[in-house]
Formats: sequence, C-alpha cells, structure tokens
Amino acid sequence: MNACGLIVEYNPFHNGHIYHIKEAKKASGADCMIAVMSGNFLQRGEPAVIDKFHRTRTALNSGIDIVLELPYIYAVQNSDLFADGAVKTLNEAGVSTICFGSESGSISHFITSFHTLKAKRAIFDETLKKYLDRGISFPEASKHAYTNIGLTDQHIDLTKPNNILGYSYVKSILENNLSISPLTIKRTNNDFHDQTITSTIASATSIRKELLKHNALTAQILPAIPEETESQLMVYKDKSSIWHHWENYFPLLQYRVMTMSASEIKAIQGVDEGLENRIIKTAKKATSIYSWIESIKTKRYTWTRIQRMFVHILTNTKKADFESVHLPSVPYVRVLGMSQIGRTYLNRQKKQMHVPLLSKLTRNQDPVLAIEEKAAQAYYSVLPPEKRNSLFQQELQSPIRL
Amino acid sequence: MNACGLIVEYNPFHNGHIYHIKEAKKASGADCMIAVMSGNFLQRGEPAVIDKFHRTRTALNSGIDIVLELPYIYAVQNSDLFADGAVKTLNEAGVSTICFGSESGSISHFITSFHTLKAKRAIFDETLKKYLDRGISFPEASKHAYTNIGLTDQHIDLTKPNNILGYSYVKSILENNLSISPLTIKRTNNDFHDQTITSTIASATSIRKELLKHNALTAQILPAIPEETESQLMVYKDKSSIWHHWENYFPLLQYRVMTMSASEIKAIQGVDEGLENRIIKTAKKATSIYSWIESIKTKRYTWTRIQRMFVHILTNTKKADFESVHLPSVPYVRVLGMSQIGRTYLNRQKKQMHVPLLSKLTRNQDPVLAIEEKAAQAYYSVLPPEKRNSLFQQELQSPIRL
Repeated sequence: MNACGLIVEYNPFHNGHIYHIKEAKKASGADCMIAVMSGNFLQRGEPAVIDKFHRTRTALNSGIDIVLELPYIYAVQNSDLFADGAVKTLNEAGVSTICFGSESGSISHFITSFHTLKAKRAIFDETLKKYLDRGISFPEASKHAYTNIGLTDQHIDLTKPNNILGYSYVKSILENNLSISPLTIKRTNNDFHDQTITSTIASATSIRKELLKHNALTAQILPAIPEETESQLMVYKDKSSIWHHWENYFPLLQYRVMTMSASEIKAIQGVDEGLENRIIKTAKKATSIYSWIESIKTKRYTWTRIQRMFVHILTNTKKADFESVHLPSVPYVRVLGMSQIGRTYLNRQKKQMHVPLLSKLTRNQDPVLAIEEKAAQAYYSVLPPEKRNSLFQQELQSPIRL
Repeated sequence: MNACGLIVEYNPFHNGHIYHIKEAKKASGADCMIAVMSGNFLQRGEPAVIDKFHRTRTALNSGIDIVLELPYIYAVQNSDLFADGAVKTLNEAGVSTICFGSESGSISHFITSFHTLKAKRAIFDETLKKYLDRGISFPEASKHAYTNIGLTDQHIDLTKPNNILGYSYVKSILENNLSISPLTIKRTNNDFHDQTITSTIASATSIRKELLKHNALTAQILPAIPEETESQLMVYKDKSSIWHHWENYFPLLQYRVMTMSASEIKAIQGVDEGLENRIIKTAKKATSIYSWIESIKTKRYTWTRIQRMFVHILTNTKKADFESVHLPSVPYVRVLGMSQIGRTYLNRQKKQMHVPLLSKLTRNQDPVLAIEEKAAQAYYSVLPPEKRNSLFQQELQSPIRL
C-alpha cells in the first residue's frame, strides 16, 4: 500500500480541505490518505473551535483514512518545529509523499529555495539582521533578505503563510534525508488569512470569525463547509455547550498569571527576554484576551507568539517540557481515528515503526503524552463539570473507527 | 493609652461580636480596642463572604479602633499557628490585654491547663497516640488524653472550638513570655458551630449558611446582625456582584489541579503523606467543591484540613512560603483601618515597634506581604474583570479612616 501524508489543523474542516484531499490523492496516486493533525491547541496559539475527536470524525468522513495527533510540543510552535514534528510523524507512518497546498504550486521552487538558502545562509542572515535592526518588521525584512540571495517573488514568495509552512515541510524532509517526496498543489481562491467568506472556498480563519461572532452557523458559512462539518459542529456544541474561543479562557488565564511569581512565569515555554514582568503588569488591567495581547505586543512579540505563550501558561507547559522537541525522532505515533483502509494499512506498517504506536492516554505514559493530558484538561476546563468530565473520557478510549 | 487586643474573623460581623467588644472593653478598661483580623481567607480554609476592607469598615463602625491584618501564612493555619501569629501581632501593637470569648469563661482554667499540660506532656502525647492508633477520632482521643492528666471537663473542655483557640492564645502568650494579660468572657447562647439561627445572638456559621443558601439577607439573619453589617454586605455585593462562597472557586481550583504535576501539588503547603495523588485522582470526577472534599476526606484528613489545603492550591502558596511562620517575630504589622483614637494610639506606638508598620502593598515588598497580594488576586478572581480590578485597587490605598 502506498500512503500520502497531509499536515492539517481542520479548524474547522471546509471545502478547501476536500479539494486538498482529492488533489493530493490524484497527485500522489496513494491508496491511503494519512493526516497528521494538531490536537486541541493550534499552531497559531489558539484553542480549536471543536475538540480533536470531533475534527477527526469529520476528516474520516471526508476521505482521510488515518488521523494522527501532532503532539502539543510540536503543534503549538513556530513553523519550523511544527513542520519537523509533522514530517517526522508522517515518516514513522511510512508515507511515500507529503502533499501541501501553497500559493506557489510548484515543488521545484521550494526545493531550489532550500538549496539556495542553504548555500547563502550567511548573506541571508546578515541582510535579515540589518533590516531588523533598522526596525523593519520580520516579514518585510525577510523579503529583502530573500531578494538579496536571488529568491524573488517570481520564484516563490516566502513571506506568504502557506509558502512558509510548505518551505518548512520541504526543509524538514531534505535536512532529515527522509525518503518522502514532497508534492504541492496550488491553493484556489482565498488566502490563509482572509477575514471574510467570499465563495464556496473560504479560509478557515474567515469561517471561524463568522462562526464565533454570531455563535451560529450562518448562511454565509454553510456554502463553504461540507455537511459533515456542519453536523460535527452541532454535535460538539450539543455535548459541550460551546464552540471554543480564546475569550472563554480569559478568567482562567488571568487568575493563573495573577497567582504566579515572575520566576514561575519565566519557566514557561515562550516567555523570553524578561517578558514575565510585562505579562504580570498588563494582567492587572486586562479585561479580555484581546485587550491583554494588545497591551503586550510589540514588533518583536507578534500576536501569534503571544498567543502561543498564553497557551503554554494556560496548560502549565514549561521550557523543560519541550526539551525532547529537538530529538531526532518523535517519541510515539498516536492514532486518533481510522477507516477500514487505514486499519489495514496500520496493521502492516506498525511492524516497521521505530517508536510506539499509541491510541489513548495510559498510566505511566511518555512525558510528551502526559502534556497532551494536561492540554486536554485545560481545553475542556471552560465547560460545565459534567460535560467536561464526559468529553475528557474520549482521551481514554480506543481510536475512532469508521 | 491602654490597648486591648481581640482576635477575630468577622465573617460576618454579628451581635455576638458587639457583645464581645463591649465586654472586653469593660474587662480590660482599655481606651483603644485593637482587632487582628484574618484577611480574605479564613482559619477554617474558606473565602470570607465579603473582603477584608468591607469587614474592616463594619468593625470600625462598631467600636474597634484599629484593624490589623493577620498575615495569610498565620491566618490559614491550625489553631496554634493562627494564635501565635495573632498574639505576636498584637504584642507588636503594644496591647496590655487580649480578651477572647470562650465556653469556659474562666481565665485561670486556661492558665492551669497550660502548666499542667506542660508538666505532663509525655503522658498526654502517649495517651493521645494510643487512642488515635485505635482509630478513635482526634477530638475523642484528645478528651481521653486530657482526662488522663487530670484536666476534666469540670475545669475546661479543651475539645470545644473556642476553648481550643483560647488555649492557643494563652499558650502563645505564656510560651513567648509576653507582658500581655489574657482575659476571657463567657460566650452567650450559640455555639461556634451552630448551624441554625435561634436568637439575636447567632453563630457566624449559621448566619453564613443562611446567607449563602438564599443569597439574600433573610428575615432570619437581620435580627442577629447590626445595621452596619447589613449595609456593608449590600455595598460589597453591589460592587462585586457576589458574596464569596467556596463553590464560586470550583472551576478555577479544578482547572488548576488538572494542569499541575503530582510533584507541583506536593510542593503546596498542607499537601502531605502522598495526598497529591488522591487530589489528582478525585479531581477528575469532582463536580463541586463539596463533592470533591467528600471524596478526599478521611479520619486523618478532616474537612477543615482539606479546605485549608485547597486555599493554598488556589493561591499557589508553597511549603517554602511558610518557612517564616516559625520565626520569633511577625515580619510586619499591617493596618487595614483605624478610628481617630486608633490613629493617635498608633502614632505613639509605632516608635516602639520592632517590625515595620505597613498600610498597603508596595513594590519590592516583604515576601509575606507578596503572598497577601496573590491571595487577594485569587480571592477576587471569580468576579467580572472590571469589578475585580477595581476592588483589588483597595490593596494599594492607605488604611481606611473613620
């Protein structure tokens, strides 16, 4: 059997994702589609609108055969570490190809960029530093640095979010000498960051924005998502009472920060360069997550970076917990769900894995999996007690089977 | 000037407290009445119904001249350490007498008990251990041990809550060789622990129970409290939106425990003998503070002991934070409020104090005062953000003046 890997968040799953799965299947010729998916907290430092189990169900009902969980220590990270964890997980799962959507659409551009950048790293870094020192923003400074080593927008614009992620995937594959072929398909219509829904292919950002603003599946959203997403969004809300939003966590996060010492905050992942004092000071006046981030952010500390740091404070995840993120291999592969094809595939593949294949939380578990447990508890902690306890039970059950 | 000290919680202030102040004034002949009062969290491990500032106002309007704050590290403690902190604070404040209510009403009984117990400590301890080993409850076992050294109920029943506290006050005065005369007045009517209101003198427990059950000042409560209490209860609720109750804190406490490691819980004050695992295990199924404590408590871990431990988890107060509790002196004396008489008294007395006289939170403050700040933040954290921020401001202001 021949497997193709996708790296996803599905927050929420929409028509663009269906297109991605279909095109990836076509381009790879694979008979098993494997998605490695962030859990309850996402790369940009946000809680997922619905939990990983309900997002897994949608994926399995929409053409994915196996959903693997990207561990928290890789998922809530910058694009390089996010990509590295995802690629290594898919490598353990034995995929032949990894297919990602990009603004570019040409895989050779990514590969050329990798080699050019590797050869001219020193010049790139020097240029980047020069522009950053002048107070230019990171994306703008990068643009200058890329141009300076001959990588212009004509080839590939490495300041566009999906190109950045795609580049990180390719880089991880090449740097780790993995026998995986990277593939890319050109994204249609909407940009990653688009804030409004303009067609049946809309960005997850625009769908979330509309969903959380109205706290309802409006007529704007419905054309952009498959029925399966609609159904899982409703099922989850029925079980939990909410769709998760950063603002739900504001009282917990503020309480937490206000009862921590500066040195305890400093021990949290992502709190660097004396930011602990700024966090404590601003906490006292904050009245929402939004206003709080606004009062912390600077050119250096972007919105996303602060959100990721807030997730780590919320889940009490420390710098020490992230040490294994730089190890050559992921610590385990966790299956969240699988189709019949996925089951057959995994039964064969598991013999060739170098790390344990896991399905649920257990006693005396891997420390990286223990972080997953804390993250799940933190994620559900905004729900009424009975609902929280019952949703958490999913963590202790066997993978979802289609 | 001649000052008399009272050791109080005023949760809430009621007619029995008015009686206590009047009788203490009479018995001591003092012209300045000083109360040392627990802050926002109390000896039995509970949040106060209204904050310390509003309880201070009631006290000042009811005959107290100075309200001092008993630091958290003494206040949320067993009776011996609670008493020790309170007595030492009053000693710094220069009181000549300390007057407490007791079931006994005779100070000589307390003094005799102290000397008898000191002389026969070994026999007492041996008897106590023997009965505890048989599985007898602590109060019952103590009763046997007291009888065995000749201290019978005829003299003084040292298993009654106010006698226990009174005994601890006397013990602290005598053991520290302080030039303070202990005085006691016989409590009228209701017992400390009475659950229902039966007259105009009712226990604080029964008043709180009625107040929190109906979330209103019912016709049962009004005859048992002065108008000043009624008014401060209403003012506070208007500012904060609630009267504080343990159950308000359940979501925060459960969230907190679920994101802590066993070793982090073990570092918290009051978590002994492997209780951390029991706390984590029971947290997963708890649906209220009540049900959670029920599932933890044993003969060894009484309700009160668990509540105190829960307060320490909530405020993130560690064993290390309590080290200074055994020092010969309190670290500072903090004034919460004063009358004109109180001001005059303190102006003279402050020259003779061995520790700083403080009034508000400051930068680079004493570590013990820093704990007060965290406790205040934790206490207010169940309120809407604007209300919480504005009530916390009281910590940064000068003492309340009548």
